[in-house]
This record gives sequence, C-alpha cells and structure tokens, in this order.
Amino acid sequence: MRAYILSTGDEVLLGDIVDTNSSFLCRSLKDMGIEVDKIIAVGDSVDTISANIKDISFKSDICLVTGGLGPTKDDLTALACGKAADQALELNMQALGFMKSYFKKAGFQLTKENEKQAMLPINAKMIINDNGTAPGFYIKINRCLFFFMPGVPLEMKLMFEYQIKNMLINKFNLSDKILIERLTVFGLGESKVGFLLKEFENSYPAMRLGFRADFPIVEVKIVMSDSNMDKNKALSQIKDAKLWVIGQLEKKVISTKGLSIAQEVGCLLTQQNKTLAIAESCTGGMIANMMTDIDGSSDYFLFSGVTYSNDAKINILNVQKKTIINHGAVHEQTALEMAQGARKKAGADFAISTTGIAGPTGGTKARPVGMVCIGIAGADFSKAKTYKFSFDDRLLNKKMFAAMALELLRRHLVNLEKKP
Amino acid sequence: MRAYILSTGDEVLLGDIVDTNSSFLCRSLKDMGIEVDKIIAVGDSVDTISANIKDISFKSDICLVTGGLGPTKDDLTALACGKAADQALELNMQALGFMKSYFKKAGFQLTKENEKQAMLPINAKMIINDNGTAPGFYIKINRCLFFFMPGVPLEMKLMFEYQIKNMLINKFNLSDKILIERLTVFGLGESKVGFLLKEFENSYPAMRLGFRADFPIVEVKIVMSDSNMDKNKALSQIKDAKLWVIGQLEKKVISTKGLSIAQEVGCLLTQQNKTLAIAESCTGGMIANMMTDIDGSSDYFLFSGVTYSNDAKINILNVQKKTIINHGAVHEQTALEMAQGARKKAGADFAISTTGIAGPTGGTKARPVGMVCIGIAGADFSKAKTYKFSFDDRLLNKKMFAAMALELLRRHLVNLEKKP
Repeated sequence: MRAYILSTGDEVLLGDIVDTNSSFLCRSLKDMGIEVDKIIAVGDSVDTISANIKDISFKSDICLVTGGLGPTKDDLTALACGKAADQALELNMQALGFMKSYFKKAGFQLTKENEKQAMLPINAKMIINDNGTAPGFYIKINRCLFFFMPGVPLEMKLMFEYQIKNMLINKFNLSDKILIERLTVFGLGESKVGFLLKEFENSYPAMRLGFRADFPIVEVKIVMSDSNMDKNKALSQIKDAKLWVIGQLEKKVISTKGLSIAQEVGCLLTQQNKTLAIAESCTGGMIANMMTDIDGSSDYFLFSGVTYSNDAKINILNVQKKTIINHGAVHEQTALEMAQGARKKAGADFAISTTGIAGPTGGTKARPVGMVCIGIAGADFSKAKTYKFSFDDRLLNKKMFAAMALELLRRHLVNLEKKP
Repeated sequence: MRAYILSTGDEVLLGDIVDTNSSFLCRSLKDMGIEVDKIIAVGDSVDTISANIKDISFKSDICLVTGGLGPTKDDLTALACGKAADQALELNMQALGFMKSYFKKAGFQLTKENEKQAMLPINAKMIINDNGTAPGFYIKINRCLFFFMPGVPLEMKLMFEYQIKNMLINKFNLSDKILIERLTVFGLGESKVGFLLKEFENSYPAMRLGFRADFPIVEVKIVMSDSNMDKNKALSQIKDAKLWVIGQLEKKVISTKGLSIAQEVGCLLTQQNKTLAIAESCTGGMIANMMTDIDGSSDYFLFSGVTYSNDAKINILNVQKKTIINHGAVHEQTALEMAQGARKKAGADFAISTTGIAGPTGGTKARPVGMVCIGIAGADFSKAKTYKFSFDDRLLNKKMFAAMALELLRRHLVNLEKKP
C-alpha cells in the first residue's frame, strides 16, 4: 500500500513553523504498519493544491492532507479538492449541523464566514472535529482515499487518533492489535543504540524498532502489528524481544516503561514513599523544572535551592564558607555540602546537587566547560563525584548535568528496592 | 524564480525525526527574497530520489537537497543525482583532497567507505563541509541548479550560511544588503498580532513581515531585501516601518531587539547593575531555568527558592505560618512574603515570586487551574497581584506564569529607567 502526506499552508513554506504534523502522521502510520512514501508541502494556492491532489490520486492508495480548512480566505483546501475531483462544492448538511452544535456549545454565533467551512465536495463525507470549528472530510479520488484534516496540531492529532485511525483499520483490514513496548536509555547516543541492536530485525522479523532522541535520553520502541497472530503468542514474542533489547543495552536502560528520567525517579520516589530536595548551581533550576513538569510531583518534590551565588550557597544551603574559600564553588566538597544542606533545610529523605561549568564562558584549565560535581545525600550516607562531558554548548551541558544527577539518584533508589 | 526543497532520508518518513532542515532553509530563502514553492520528503531509494530530481529539474530554478551524503549504504543521493542527470559518478579529486585534509586534521584514517563520499556526478562541483566528513556539491540539471547538502542540521546550516547563500546571491543577482529588524511581543496571540499588522504590506510594499511563536512570546521580523535602494534610505525606511509596528502593538512589545523575556530582563538588570532573586512555587524552577540559560546570568541572578512544600515556603523563605494557615499557599499575601523572603535571603535588589495552580489536577472553584499570584519586591516597595489564564495544560500554564512574572519585573525596570 502506498501512502502520501500532503501538508498545505504558506506558513510551512515561509519557514514560520516547523511541520510537526507530518512527522506525527508518519510515526502513527508506521505504528499501524504503513510506511509513508512521500511528504509534500505546498502553499495556499488552489491551483497548486489541486494539481498535487490530482497527481497523488493516481499514485497513492491513501493520502493524509492537513491544513486549509479554516474560515479565512487563505483556507482553500476544500475548493482545491473539489477541483481535483471535478466536483462542485455544496453545503454539507451534516457538517453544518456539527458546526451549529459546536458553536452553540461554545456560546458563539455561527457567522457566514464559518458556514464556508461546511462547503465540501459533493462526494465527500464529513469527519467530526471535537476540538475546533473546522470539520474534516474524506473522499476517494481515482485510486486514492484522501483524508482532510485541520492544520492546528492538537485538532489534527485528536481527529486522527480517534476517528481516521479506525477508518483506516477497517477499510484496509489492518491489525488493530498493535503491540508497542517502550524503554528509555541514558548514556548512549542514538547511533550507538542502533548499532547495539542491529541484529534485532534478523532475530525478530515480525517486529520493528523505532528510535527517538530527546537529548540526552534515547527512547527505543518495539512495534508489532501482525494481524493474524494469536494475542497471547504475540504478547509473549514482544516480551522476549524486549528482554533481548534490555540484554543488549544492559545498565544503560533507565526505564523499562519508556519514561523520562524525571518520571522514572518520580515513580520510584512515590513507590518508596520518599521525598526529594535539590540544590542546583550550574543546572540553574532545570532539575526542579523537569520534576515539576510532572503532574502530582508535589507529593514527593519539596524544594530546590537554585544557588547561583556563593553567598546563597552559604546562607541558604549552609555550605561552609571555608569550603568555598579553600576549594571553590565547583568542587566535590561543595556539592556534598549543598546536597546535605538542601536535604536538611527541606526535611527531605534525599537530596541531589550540581555545581559545575555549563559554559560557554567561565571555564579554566583546572575546571573546564563540561565539568560538573554531583552530590547525593540520604539519611545515612552522602557522597559526591566529578564528571566531565565534552559538549561545548551551555544548554546541552545543563541537560546532561541534570540527567546525570537524576540518574545517580535513580540508581540509588533501584538498589534500595533490590535490598530485602 | 521557482525554488524547491528536497529532503531525503527514511528517518523523516518514519517519523523518527522532525524535518527542521526544510523549515530553516525556507526561512533563510525567504529572508533573501526567495519564496519556496514546494517541499518534498522521500526515503532512501535511488529510484525515488532520482525520479524526483529529474521531475524538479524541469519545474524549478533552484533546489536545495539535504541528506544521503554519508558513508553508509543508505547514503544514495549522489548516485541518484547522477542517474537523474544521466551522468556517471567519478572520484572528484577536489572532494577527495578536502576529505583527506579533514581526516588528517581530526586524526583519523580515511577508509574506503569514506572515499565513496567523494564519488560525485561528472559535472558536479564540490562544496566544502567545514563541520563533517561529507562534502556537498552543486550541479545544473535541465533548468534547475541543485545544491546537495548533508542531512545533519549543524553541517547543513553552516554549509548554507557560509557558502551556498553567497553562491545564490552571485548567481541570481540577489541583494546582499538584506536588512532585518526584530521585536518580541507578549500578551497577544500570533493571529492577533497578524491582524493588528494587516495593513503593513500596503504601507510598506518593499518589506515583508515574518512571525514566529514561542509560546507565550511572538517574534515579529521585518525583512527588506531590495538590491537597488541606497543603504541609508533603506535603513531609514525599515526604521520607519519598525516604529509603525511598535505603534500598532504598543505596550505589548517587550523587546525592540527581538530578545526573549528572560534576555530582556537580563539586559535591563545588567544595565542598571541590579541583582535578582526568585521564589517559585507553581513555576517549579522554570523562571530560574530560563534566566540561567543565558550565558553570563551569574552576574545578576543570585538565587531561586523553588518551594513546592509549605514547610519550604515557611522555613526557607520565611513566609509566616499564619499566612499559610489563614490564606493558603495560593494567595497574594503568600506571594508577597515569598518575594520579600527570597529578596532578603539572597541579598538581592529585586525578587519576583509565583504561587498558583498549574494543573491539570489540584484546582478548586475558588482557586481554579490557571490561577496564579505573582509577587514583586524591591528595596522600597512590594506588591502582589492575581491573574487567571484559561490554558488547560500544565506546561502552558507554567510558561505563561513564568513569562508574566518576568514581565512584571520588566515593566518595573523600564519605568525605573524612564525616571530621571
């Protein structure tokens, strides 16, 4: 089966936005076992859009189209579709009814401009948009089934997830028993992960691997979409495959559920009913920000002291003045006292700390950019360690330092779990 | 002039990566006065890539191609180009020479696999890659001039910026006197900004506007690329246009240099030689993280107390226990005492604070998701104010709360500047 994606809108061609819609649709189709042949992006012109639709109608079996369904004069996709299909537009009563009820619910008046959104090619069938005013639609032209969706990412995603996906599964007899397993890796680049798993396809031909890098974390996805296999057998096969992947990546696997490092630490703290404090110098609030992105993190996250100045380290975290004078701010002893201080001040079970050089300026020969001292403290232990990374970029360094600090805590929590 | 972009690589079609290269190239071409007609993304197949190159060679004047120049077996772009141009590949001695010197400098041995990267179509001319092993190349096929670049974003960007841009300017007689003015806006959505500036093109036909949203901030770019105008006249015209834009957007303009809200606050603090402390509850470290993303922020940023628990607010920021008991954590009085406490603890000139409900859970009728109390304190004043935003998303709320807190400080600093 051949699949195309057609993305419409001047904003993509002017570089004003990055086309994340196409990437989402490619990923979603891949998970269903459909690989996309071509992505095309064109501007808001009836002639260009209709010429591309016509061309695709002879070449592809399905085509997902995004954008141009709104009420303004640059929204031309329905018109272009009609032209390509040699069909006039007519007021689609189902679409109009949907819009009327949507507007009523939102407390707005339906205007003449909005009514234009219900003008669809005669043979088109409406798709409900639960999250916006523009109905979608689908239509067969020549050999190709076209699905037209809004360009607003959230509206498009939900329309695809909740409606178009099922239509595709039914119309093309795809498996609705897609199994997906995810795990996340820290300490290996994406290409290295790929290299370590290069035998996967030979060993598990019924499955596919996908990778997504969110520096410094790599997500590995195992996808199985065989429609004919017995469910239990499929489940057991994908579990086998996952164990094989974990075996290859060993201790670099930080979550066997595909969680981020902050989510994984949050889960472990919740399970063990423990609380966390943080003391951040070079990460500048990033660790706290990562933890508090998680809904419900107030259950275990108590406090982070983002102490950029030495005085703040001394006055707020109770780092000893002589430690700073003798060793400087970037030192294991300082990291140690920061963690101990944050833990005590916040009354937390654990604390982690960072002090280092994120760069690009501020490095010296003895304390180069990329060097970080990380501390960790609990009720009956505390330690600190120095790491050196070679990213010459402030943001990458902050991300790496933050992940490394959380990783040290994660390892400690996992070991606690393993003890009887 | 017609321009196409051709992006090659399975990783885009599998949805493993988002095609940011194409967006960068569209933006760069637009700044030079060239609007892109079509973006096409295809996978790593010689036949598909060459068919697309051939098709484009009759339709477009220039085409920027990315990806597929590496040493591995999926790197097929040079082969596909040769096929489309009906030309054999030959070892390009200039490309080989460049690679030898690149490898020598990096201390690596040139392997047979790498030598493949110097195999180019006979009529192709090499483009140096200063940041990787894969040389680029350009070649005319039918009416179209093709530029082939690596897919690695950094290598591609630098090759475009430092080499291809100048080639385009020379070959197509484009203006090299592009003038760009930027400003940033807070408190208006992108479509509202566009609406307020809708008369721009009529009033300033020699210029174009571009918008980029980085929630909740919108960047407005004014671009002028007229090759024939006198430089001083052009400068005066674009300044006029900028004043008109500022006049339309009024107080919503937060930076007339196009800075982010954190950068603008950082500049103002530096100019006024003032220091900052922060007390964050619902923003959870995000404000500190934004400030410390700026190199050199240690000059003015001293401390942020990320106090998620009430105890931390009381023990670390000296919020009075009775304030929390009587009013709760989300209250203007709490925000006020948080700001005062952070300022005093850190010995800073100013402090800002946030306490609110980021959601999605934790809201009540009296304190709904999206409500935030923001405090600000200086040597001789302090105040707090409540805001309600209607984003039903934790991350959007955090971003909006953080920007709002920085905006209050910015307004205060700007007013200080205006006083004699």
